[in-house]
Amino acid sequence: MLKLYYTVGSCSLASHIALEEAGASYEAQAISTKRGDQRTPEYLAINPKGRVPSLVTERGVLTETPAILAFIAQSFPDAKLAPLDDPYAFAQAQAFNSYLCSTVHVAHAHKHRGYRWADDPAALAEMTRKVPEVETACFQLIEDEMLRGPWVLGEDYSICDPYLFTLAGWLEGDGIDIAQFPKLAAHSDRMRARPAVSKVLAEQGA
Amino acid sequence: MLKLYYTVGSCSLASHIALEEAGASYEAQAISTKRGDQRTPEYLAINPKGRVPSLVTERGVLTETPAILAFIAQSFPDAKLAPLDDPYAFAQAQAFNSYLCSTVHVAHAHKHRGYRWADDPAALAEMTRKVPEVETACFQLIEDEMLRGPWVLGEDYSICDPYLFTLAGWLEGDGIDIAQFPKLAAHSDRMRARPAVSKVLAEQGA
Repeated sequence: MLKLYYTVGSCSLASHIALEEAGASYEAQAISTKRGDQRTPEYLAINPKGRVPSLVTERGVLTETPAILAFIAQSFPDAKLAPLDDPYAFAQAQAFNSYLCSTVHVAHAHKHRGYRWADDPAALAEMTRKVPEVETACFQLIEDEMLRGPWVLGEDYSICDPYLFTLAGWLEGDGIDIAQFPKLAAHSDRMRARPAVSKVLAEQGA
Repeated sequence: MLKLYYTVGSCSLASHIALEEAGASYEAQAISTKRGDQRTPEYLAINPKGRVPSLVTERGVLTETPAILAFIAQSFPDAKLAPLDDPYAFAQAQAFNSYLCSTVHVAHAHKHRGYRWADDPAALAEMTRKVPEVETACFQLIEDEMLRGPWVLGEDYSICDPYLFTLAGWLEGDGIDIAQFPKLAAHSDRMRARPAVSKVLAEQGA
């Protein structure tokens, strides 16, 4: 059985929702990054990067949200979570998820995790200050150019949708009003109405 | 025919090598980010993010290195550039490339592109100062945990190899001696010995 290690409020929510949407048989195990669970020898043996998500499979451990999401889509093809038989369409899904991981998530991380890239407290404060500006620019691009509607890729729900929903959920905490992105706000409402999403949010106590 | 927009010294080298290894029929078009080509209306119409690489296909434009690399592997299956028929093995390849784009490339970007996340010159200087430390930690993890050898995924060359080679090529400019990572240094030598790699490097004048 698959086992997902996740942290409430982290990007691992996307993989958790995707597992639920796929109808997978899985166990979800919460760890607390505030408590430092991700740096215990036990967890580092699972994922040497000390991050979530980690997906334990019968063949080994997978990490990195875009990789886990594509793995879920390919492992449960009947759930139709990605355009698996069309390399171009699949690449568009992957490009969207890659933008989320390498640019949008990174923009957000400069608020509380600036210590990854600087030590000086003044520099950390400066990064935190700029986060709303940077993150707003990212979501404006998503609103204007990427989110086709009703779902990210258009008519078909995919692995891009729980990932976008997860990162959009960080906007309020970063001082950004989602209402300035009407398509994105409607997408988040649409996501919350899905049984799989409400089930996972309830399980995470979020 | 495929058309790749690239910039010398950027991550687009990975896609350029992959196209060559795939035996694809393609054109490679250099643009200069120093000159600001990526912010011209013409280029923004191709890629609204104003970044490289962009791969123009007959169906539309693809962006983001991990997505383009997987697209090349899937479009030219005879080149065997990824374990396409094994979702778990494919996810491992994707996890590696995702780590490169979201963590390693981002670590490097704090040297010259810190303005993405801060405005204050002192903060930018502080980010630049920490780059060697952060990047060394990334490549130590790759050396210890990820690079199986002789290629990233083990015996089989894949889309992970040109991407790793590309980012490893930034170490010297960032003040890091690749010799401290023996497996990585041998990997880069192995890459340079491939005809496709030397051909692309010559074409890029690199």
